Parts: sequence; structure tokens; C-alpha cells
Amino acid sequence: MPIIAIDAMGGDHAPGEIVKGVARASLETDIDCLLVGDERRIQEVLETVPYNPEHISIVDCRDAIGMDEDPHEAVKNRRDASLLVATRAVAEGRANAMVSAGNTGACVLACARDFRLLKGIRRAALASVYPRHTEYTGQDPLALVLDVGATIRCEAEELVQFALMGSAYARRISKVPSPRVALLNMGVEASKGGETLVAAHRRLRRMPALNFVGNVEGNDLARGGADVIVCEGLLGNVVLKLVEGIAEVFTDVASAAARRRLTWRIGLALLARGIERLRELTDYTQYGGAPILGFENLFIKCHGRSNARAVANAVKVAAKAVRDRVPAEIAEAVASLR
Amino acid sequence: MPIIAIDAMGGDHAPGEIVKGVARASLETDIDCLLVGDERRIQEVLETVPYNPEHISIVDCRDAIGMDEDPHEAVKNRRDASLLVATRAVAEGRANAMVSAGNTGACVLACARDFRLLKGIRRAALASVYPRHTEYTGQDPLALVLDVGATIRCEAEELVQFALMGSAYARRISKVPSPRVALLNMGVEASKGGETLVAAHRRLRRMPALNFVGNVEGNDLARGGADVIVCEGLLGNVVLKLVEGIAEVFTDVASAAARRRLTWRIGLALLARGIERLRELTDYTQYGGAPILGFENLFIKCHGRSNARAVANAVKVAAKAVRDRVPAEIAEAVASLR
Repeated sequence: MPIIAIDAMGGDHAPGEIVKGVARASLETDIDCLLVGDERRIQEVLETVPYNPEHISIVDCRDAIGMDEDPHEAVKNRRDASLLVATRAVAEGRANAMVSAGNTGACVLACARDFRLLKGIRRAALASVYPRHTEYTGQDPLALVLDVGATIRCEAEELVQFALMGSAYARRISKVPSPRVALLNMGVEASKGGETLVAAHRRLRRMPALNFVGNVEGNDLARGGADVIVCEGLLGNVVLKLVEGIAEVFTDVASAAARRRLTWRIGLALLARGIERLRELTDYTQYGGAPILGFENLFIKCHGRSNARAVANAVKVAAKAVRDRVPAEIAEAVASLR
Repeated sequence: MPIIAIDAMGGDHAPGEIVKGVARASLETDIDCLLVGDERRIQEVLETVPYNPEHISIVDCRDAIGMDEDPHEAVKNRRDASLLVATRAVAEGRANAMVSAGNTGACVLACARDFRLLKGIRRAALASVYPRHTEYTGQDPLALVLDVGATIRCEAEELVQFALMGSAYARRISKVPSPRVALLNMGVEASKGGETLVAAHRRLRRMPALNFVGNVEGNDLARGGADVIVCEGLLGNVVLKLVEGIAEVFTDVASAAARRRLTWRIGLALLARGIERLRELTDYTQYGGAPILGFENLFIKCHGRSNARAVANAVKVAAKAVRDRVPAEIAEAVASLR
């Protein structure tokens, strides 16, 4: 059984929801969890919930990186923070993969500092999930987009590697046998988007192992049609945050409308549960988190707002990715490029 | 009174809605309109609506560029198409500004071919509007974003010029005395987004004539807080199309929810009018269109789906921009940079 290291102190609701999530995973699975953080506070939470002590061990450390701290400073100077103690545990083989709901920038930098890039991989990518229109019953309502912030600008070669990494991950985790991979661009034509995107498109089209469906534009993002969306970090970051902000604005605009028309107001009140459900989706509670890909060790980054359910699911996702050898599969796909 | 050239044949509902829009403007204003297109078809439409013949003249031409045609090919080879006949009329001084709801790429290329860049301007920008949460009653519910597709990648100097152009336009057209200008980025800190965005941020912050409010992230886009958003074309294009696609997806996700819960279904039915209103906003019918900025002559690009009301408003916006000397104001702002 894989051993998963969990940063108990990272996240808006840490350590409470993180520890409760691990407690839940300890009852529902045989995964061994290494909880890294303030032992006294971890124990306090564990006393309030049922859990299986056989599957949980604690690594005590007193420092923790805050959600709003400067990631560079923190990763450089705070070697005893829970996040960094946990990544070292993974790097040294005491655990097989890692889960954190903490400071995103610090998570990416901690990987870069303690993990090794897979052979042939030029740069790591931070993936995320976003809700999309489902095309058939039972389809995963979330698609994967990468990179969303580990990089800023990317070269064609790097985008191609992101495509391979995303495809390998989606195949194993979302259980899509042949994930449709698309390149985010300003037009569907192969000639669009400038030198880098044109070169990336040309290379992706020639790869038989990849189900490349071509370029997608902003409006296609929401409609579905692809399981993995590839883009450079600046673009992915803006898009992801825009999607997160949209539900909020929709509620606002609709509320303004509601103030003017009674029928709209009634409609809104009734729709509130539906909006809540949409928000849950973007909160990853079902999905458990999204991976940082490209390193020898897998890192599942949970949303900062993650609750116990999200954390439990992230632990399961991390364990599944270890069992299914996702990093090795990525390395093989990249090696076959040569 | 300014003379506005209108491409009668461009747009999903051309020439019908275009000509009806001009007819409406001829009754509501003293603006002189030059309708460029198939004279017989234009006359047919004019016979069905009231209009003031003193303010409308027709320039006959039989060719028209389709919405899905390759813009490069079309602008290169179809010199007698209504769009190009109209831009030449403006370039030669027979009209002062231009309105089209046609093929966006062709509109940008037609400007580049027939209009001169303002002195000091390095590249033109295609602006667009997007709906945002309004912060106070009476605030323009639409904000300006540029560039959304005239460029792909931009240098810092070009982003700074976009900021000046957008600010000048918003000041005159949206009647915001000191428009808040923001740089679209992956973080609010001045150090974010890589070399180009960091340099652009530094320069924008130092410009006393500009109300620069700093970086905005994807989620801020929807929330308001800025009247003009500056970004390179690839990013702006994806963001704009994503916003356009979002209302659609929201409806889809909500519909799926509605199938499962009766209360949601009732809510949705009642909310339908509200969603329709949101869609109207993104359809620019109120706003009339968005400018292509940086040339000596102003070009108002209407959405392809524009109806008569949108076209009439675009004609008014174009005339106002001419009267308020928007291009000259941009040239002065850029000159003051030296």
C-alpha cells in the first residue's frame, strides 16, 4: 500500500479539516498516511473523530507556511515548516506521494526544491480542474487544464510535454481511456496563435499516442469537447481564476436583476441550491485536488478551501496515481518522443 | 456633423439589421451615414422602414466578405468588397469613421491596410467590452478590454500604449472622468507575470496622466474594480470568448440540475428572463460595439450578431468619438510619453 504524506497545516481550514479528511481516509481505505504538522493540534482533532490508528502516523513539526506568505521567502527560509518537512519525507522515500491544501506557490517551489524532474521533462506544470458542460451521463464534469501557474511563458516543446503529462494523468485518474487533448488558442485553425502555438500544434498533431483534438478557443473551454486543455501558465492562471470568479458575478448580476423583478427574485431563491452545487464543483470536494506534474513524485494540490471530504479524496487520488505509476507513465511517454 | 461609413454587408444579420440600424440613426440624430454595399438590397430594406433620406447616401458595391472567410485572403484579393470600399472611403476623407459588424479579422486587416497608425503608436489594438459587476447605480455595466486579437504577444511599450488608448476612449465614450486602468496578470504583486508584464507595470505606475490601479487577476475581471483592462491579444481573446461562453455553460449546468430537482426547474424557468438579459449585455446592443484603436481613423467593430439597435448605437458612438477627437487625444497622450 502506498504511503501518502499530508501537510496537516496547509489550507484555509487546517489543521481541522485536513486531519478529519485523513481520519476519514484511514477508515475507508488501507492507505498509510503520514500527517506532518503540530502533533499536539493534530492529536486534538483526532480525538474528536473516529479513525484507524494503524493507518496514521504523525511527524511533528511546529512551523507552518501561511496562505498569504511570499512563497519564495518561505520555501527558502522555513525548512521546518510542515510543507517542506513533508516534501522531504517524500523525496527521501519515507512516503510515495504528497497532499497539501496550502499556499500554492510554496507547494510548487517545494516540489522544485525537493523533488527531481522526470528524465526528459523540461518544466513541471501545475494542473487544475474546471467544471464544463457534460456531454453524456456519467462523464467527469471536470476537465483538466495545465499549466495554471508553475510557468509564465512556454516553448512549444514544453506545451507538448504538458499534453503528454495531462493525458497520462487523465487516463489513470479520470478513467477516460483516450483523453481528448486540446491546445488553448485564439482560433481553431492550425495557423493561429503565433510561432510557439503553431509549432506546438504541428507537433501534437503528429503524435499517434495522443488523442489531440486541435485548438480550442475560450468559448469551447466551457462547452467541453476536450478532457485536457494545454496552455502556458499565464493564460491558464487567468482562465482558471476567471472561471472561479464567474459564478460569483453571475449571482451578482442575477441579484441585481432580481431586485427589479419579483419573478426573477423568486427564481433566484429557488436556484440558490443549484448555484451552491456549481460552487461545490469548483471547490474540488469531489475531485480531491489537481496534480503538480513532471516530478518523480506526485503532489496533489487541494484547493485552499478544501474540507475533510476533499482531503480524503485527494489522499485516494494520490494513492491511485502511485499505484498506477503515473510518473513512470509520463516518463515513458516523454522518452518515446526522442 | 461627422460622416460615418457603414459596411452594410457585414454581420450575421446583414444587410437587413445593418440598414435598419442606420435608418434608425438617421431619424434620431443628424449624423450623415454612408451605407456601403449592394444598393439594390439596401434599397429593399430601406423601403420597409422609416428613415431620413437627407442623412443617408449609398455607395454601391456587389462584393462582400463572408463571416467565415479567411481574412488574409479576403483583404488581399477582394478590393471591391463592401468592407474595403468603406475603409477606403474613410482613408480618402469621404467619411470620418467606420462601423462594421463583419468578419473581425478582416476588419482589423482592412484598417491595417487602409488606415495610418497614429504617430508614435507601434501597434493597433482591438478592444471589446465585457459585463462586470456594477459597483454603483448608473455605472456602465460594461468594461473595456484590449487587446483581444489584433496582436498575439506584446512588448511592455505596446501594453503601455494600449493603456493610454483604452483610457482615452473610456474617458470620452463611457464618460468616466478618470478611468481605472488595470493590467491583466497572474498575481496582484508588481513582481508577477514575467519580464514583459513587470516592465509594463513599472512604466504604468509612473504615469501621472493615467489612473493605473495595478494588476488584476482573472477573478477580479468579473468583479469590476477597473474600467479598462490591458493585456496581449492571445490572453484577451481567450478571456473574452470564455466570458461569452460562460452564460451558455451556466445555463447548461443549471438545466442539468433542474432535471434532478423540481424546485430548481421552477427557479430556472423564472430566471430565464434574467439570463436573457445577461446575454443581451454581452451582445453589445446597448454599447454599440468596441473600437479598433491606434489608427488615425476610428473603426467601431460591432458584434457579428448585432441587431438594428446595436448598429444605431455604434453609429452614434463612432460620431461621438469623431466629435470628441479620440484619435487626436490618443496621439497626444502617446506624444507626452517621449
